[in-house]
Amino acid sequence: MNKPTRQSELTLPNVTTGALPASRKVYSAPEAFPDLRVPFREITLAEKSGEAPVRVYDPSGPYTDEAASIDLERGLPRHREAWIIERGGVERYVGREVKPEDNGHVSGPRAARDFPNKPAPFVGVGDSPGVGGRLPEGESPTPNKAKLLTQLEYARAGIITKEMAYVAHRENLGRAAMLERANAALNDGENFGAAIPPFITPEFVRDEIARGRAIIPANINHGELEPMIIGRNFLVKINANIGNSAVTSSVEEEVEKMVWAIRWGADTVMDLSTGRNIHTTREWILRNSPVPIGTVPIYQALEKVGGDPVKLDWEVYKDTLIEQCEQGVDYFTIHAGVRLRYVPLTANRVTGIVSRGGSIMAKWCLAHHRESFLYERFEEICDLMRRYDVSFSLGDGLRPGSIADANDRAQFAELETLGELTKIAWDKGCQVMIEGPGHVPMHKVQVNVTKQLKECGEAPFYTLGPLVTDIAPGYDHITSGIGAAMIGWFGTAMLCYVTPKEHLGLPNRDDVKVGVITYKIAAHAADLAKGHPAAQLRDDALSRARFDFRWEDQFNLSLDPDTARAYHDETLPKDAHKVAHFCSMCGPKFCSMEITQQVRDYAAKLNEQQDGMDEMSQKFRDMGAEVYVQAEAASATPDQA
Amino acid sequence: MNKPTRQSELTLPNVTTGALPASRKVYSAPEAFPDLRVPFREITLAEKSGEAPVRVYDPSGPYTDEAASIDLERGLPRHREAWIIERGGVERYVGREVKPEDNGHVSGPRAARDFPNKPAPFVGVGDSPGVGGRLPEGESPTPNKAKLLTQLEYARAGIITKEMAYVAHRENLGRAAMLERANAALNDGENFGAAIPPFITPEFVRDEIARGRAIIPANINHGELEPMIIGRNFLVKINANIGNSAVTSSVEEEVEKMVWAIRWGADTVMDLSTGRNIHTTREWILRNSPVPIGTVPIYQALEKVGGDPVKLDWEVYKDTLIEQCEQGVDYFTIHAGVRLRYVPLTANRVTGIVSRGGSIMAKWCLAHHRESFLYERFEEICDLMRRYDVSFSLGDGLRPGSIADANDRAQFAELETLGELTKIAWDKGCQVMIEGPGHVPMHKVQVNVTKQLKECGEAPFYTLGPLVTDIAPGYDHITSGIGAAMIGWFGTAMLCYVTPKEHLGLPNRDDVKVGVITYKIAAHAADLAKGHPAAQLRDDALSRARFDFRWEDQFNLSLDPDTARAYHDETLPKDAHKVAHFCSMCGPKFCSMEITQQVRDYAAKLNEQQDGMDEMSQKFRDMGAEVYVQAEAASATPDQA
Repeated sequence: MNKPTRQSELTLPNVTTGALPASRKVYSAPEAFPDLRVPFREITLAEKSGEAPVRVYDPSGPYTDEAASIDLERGLPRHREAWIIERGGVERYVGREVKPEDNGHVSGPRAARDFPNKPAPFVGVGDSPGVGGRLPEGESPTPNKAKLLTQLEYARAGIITKEMAYVAHRENLGRAAMLERANAALNDGENFGAAIPPFITPEFVRDEIARGRAIIPANINHGELEPMIIGRNFLVKINANIGNSAVTSSVEEEVEKMVWAIRWGADTVMDLSTGRNIHTTREWILRNSPVPIGTVPIYQALEKVGGDPVKLDWEVYKDTLIEQCEQGVDYFTIHAGVRLRYVPLTANRVTGIVSRGGSIMAKWCLAHHRESFLYERFEEICDLMRRYDVSFSLGDGLRPGSIADANDRAQFAELETLGELTKIAWDKGCQVMIEGPGHVPMHKVQVNVTKQLKECGEAPFYTLGPLVTDIAPGYDHITSGIGAAMIGWFGTAMLCYVTPKEHLGLPNRDDVKVGVITYKIAAHAADLAKGHPAAQLRDDALSRARFDFRWEDQFNLSLDPDTARAYHDETLPKDAHKVAHFCSMCGPKFCSMEITQQVRDYAAKLNEQQDGMDEMSQKFRDMGAEVYVQAEAASATPDQA
Repeated sequence: MNKPTRQSELTLPNVTTGALPASRKVYSAPEAFPDLRVPFREITLAEKSGEAPVRVYDPSGPYTDEAASIDLERGLPRHREAWIIERGGVERYVGREVKPEDNGHVSGPRAARDFPNKPAPFVGVGDSPGVGGRLPEGESPTPNKAKLLTQLEYARAGIITKEMAYVAHRENLGRAAMLERANAALNDGENFGAAIPPFITPEFVRDEIARGRAIIPANINHGELEPMIIGRNFLVKINANIGNSAVTSSVEEEVEKMVWAIRWGADTVMDLSTGRNIHTTREWILRNSPVPIGTVPIYQALEKVGGDPVKLDWEVYKDTLIEQCEQGVDYFTIHAGVRLRYVPLTANRVTGIVSRGGSIMAKWCLAHHRESFLYERFEEICDLMRRYDVSFSLGDGLRPGSIADANDRAQFAELETLGELTKIAWDKGCQVMIEGPGHVPMHKVQVNVTKQLKECGEAPFYTLGPLVTDIAPGYDHITSGIGAAMIGWFGTAMLCYVTPKEHLGLPNRDDVKVGVITYKIAAHAADLAKGHPAAQLRDDALSRARFDFRWEDQFNLSLDPDTARAYHDETLPKDAHKVAHFCSMCGPKFCSMEITQQVRDYAAKLNEQQDGMDEMSQKFRDMGAEVYVQAEAASATPDQA
């Protein structure tokens, strides 16, 4: 898949397809919206378990659907286009021409092949026909009397969009089953003031979006999208960063990284490319991505001015926004909170400004001795992004890059400005989330959430880790996974992954997987701790499989079945061991779990017959003399199922 | 090192020796005890940094001392023997004979070679001459009027042992330097009621031990030991489990695993062997271990009765305790809290009893329908362990094995009994720590510590993780690392590592390393969050190196320099890149950290000259046109140093 390829040879990216072990893609529709096809993954368990398949949240798109035919040149089907046309308020137009600088002036053999079936963009109707283009000849603007376009605007108007109905159904995973069981123990979390309902209705989704507490990042030009929601009262989401740089990697690798990241559970993907072929790489990614794609537009703008932040201006930035709006990017990181006056606050830091976008803007501000054009032009940015329903991810350009700098004045001053900008964006009808740190020791994590919720009116928080120590480069997926689990529990809506290569190099395929799995762990641990009603169903199913020595079920229910199986096989490779009632820790002669089952049977009998203790004792001794019981004999349906 | 070897070929284990990169072993003595040689590791930084070497805590023993000659057949030097003889109260005697069942009746080519220079054991003088043996002919008992033997007894008598002075000096690492800097920000942690002093004195150590709040696990027969302390008001420690099983691994591998584990930072090592050659493996490990060794004696006792828990009795257990006391094991896990009446409390659990020791005892109790002999004989066990100063690690045999079972009645009932036993052991003069879970979701972690501190009179807590979700076999070092960091912060004194192979197989060399590094991260994150005065010095040194593009220093200061370097080299392999002022994330044309440095210089000038703003702006623009500055030119001493 990842074989070295000179870019001149690039024809068609290869991507990983096929179902995960024992899994199949299922689609389900909410009652009120029978035409929606909301995807889930169903993990089939061993027949002898007597248990129903376990349904899990599945952002992996058609790539894991054995019935789907993948054609990267055509892109994924654009089911969502019909919804957008149906509700109106948009018009198709001839988009902005691709310019040489969009791809770093690359030409000849180093140029990646264009995506061949680029759709014409939509734009929300407004005062002018389109933003960066014009209507095609012969077409007239679509009427949109309500002047609604963004999910936020629809929500405020009391309208439930198909996106809202879709995510409500998606989030409800397992909750119906849970409610039937009425097991109070499944809902005993500590949620720090979140308002997680037992069941997610489309109305709840709408209300959360209307008050700005959740977003559905969904550019009207991303018809391939399977919508998802980001908010404190929904399942905690994770983002995976991909992207080439001036130093390394190709278009082919990046498309596969996207597919690979969502295969293991990434809910959104950010394309942080900075090298050549930026536009073309992004086009291939978007046309083949079922998850929201985020970018940091200042990165591409910087490439367009030859890499010198001082040469940036509003025109080149605006041009880049339009370019990416038309392509279908779902959310933009915009570092509009890096104000001129805050830059000197970083002077005594141990690690100054570590955010790439933050340092670009700091340099610009100082060089021109002017307020940031992102801050000054913020309303114009809102007007532009609104017309494509691109969500804001307000960047934390002054986030701490070390434990020493955590929670300092520079960081919090910027956060206060992000709160101010949130309100402006909301007034303009835009959806907003807020980015957060960074490097923060454990005792300083919670105040980040508390302050963010307060300053930014509960807009969703989206944090990078945080890393809880600086001393483990090579293991920063772990240092940050600790912080991520905690901050997710405290109320962060989405966690941006960190790979083992953080601070050291660009992640490869394996690093992306390890980063995603680590963050799925963090997000799921947060869901459990917050008391998401059905979160524990998967833990319980896996633990029952473990206790019942259903090895295959244990592997298949895990976040990474391949690794679990491979680790088991290292010690006990034979197929027979997959049904063995022992594991490599204790061996066949003695096994604690196996004994426990005997203990349990005995305890049950003990309860029934309070009399005849001595007799029972003798009986058990006779029965238990042979500790190792044949796999077949002991494999009845577990009583805890 | 780990080449496959048939056991018959076993002659001498090979172990990893040599200093870590840029490191050297240094020894230092506290003023009042000039004959002590307390080891530290000193990491030398690049000359251009202008920074002093960074001293770090170092449990790796002589193996990382370039000046030491390692002879595994002789074992490590037994410096501590002189201290023990000097303070009296002990006598040497002819120990228990090694019996065939001690090594699982192994013979012939499968038998491991005996350790050739086995010392005669000490025992504390008591009513009888020795416990399991007799005095050598011609020797008479040493007088010990005070009848003191254990660290707890000395502490209560107001006496500072050399072990106490040693650990005080060891814990003070960096604190003197920190106090000089008087940087208040370094001490702003949240310690949840711990009492961490700015400086650790021998008197403080003594007082903590006297009140049972800390232990120095140090069997009088472990003369090779470099003492360390476990307690809530000291640095958080980590334990690594090693040990062969009936299924796999050899003596050679286990000795190397011990050396390998301490190389990366394990503070204690537990030998959980269950197969053949248990006695001999342990002897080789102990004679070559500078860290405390813990065991679970019931494992070996079980082997002696052919693997059938029902056949266990007090005699075989006592015989095993004596055997291991004489060998020098520093702490015993004893599951004396698994009482008959608690066993039925586990009947409705999802995963029953998962502790191996717990299930052995549960089975014994039920088969005989009798109270546990460990519980009934607890005072005898104390009397025995006291005479060798073996510390208790009271086992949590009923710990939860899944999220569903966390914090249930069975778990907490046992914990209450452990509290009762703690008081008995203290009355008998024994040092005690308490083992804890297991599998616990984040919101249920803290109450484990609170309850343990209350029930067990603040005896040190020693937890296995806990794992905060069940759904990631293959990544349980991470699921448990999250819980470990949190529980360490809340007050756990030592964290038992979990490797990626947990639940799946036996850890190999790589797994041991990953487990240790993950737990060093958790322990250090906890130290930072608790506000250990000097914990942040290493983070700060590494972050300065990172910000200053001193790549080599960044690698060398990290917990795993080899991996950090390897990851960097994957993307930028050339040596020139090790001094480059850029990294692979941004490339040479633009670098956020590099720009920040320019920003900082500018901001400083800005403060000096509030006038002439426009002039400065122009000047900076001229200066900044060339973003990439030569490494040499920009490598002055960083102003934050």
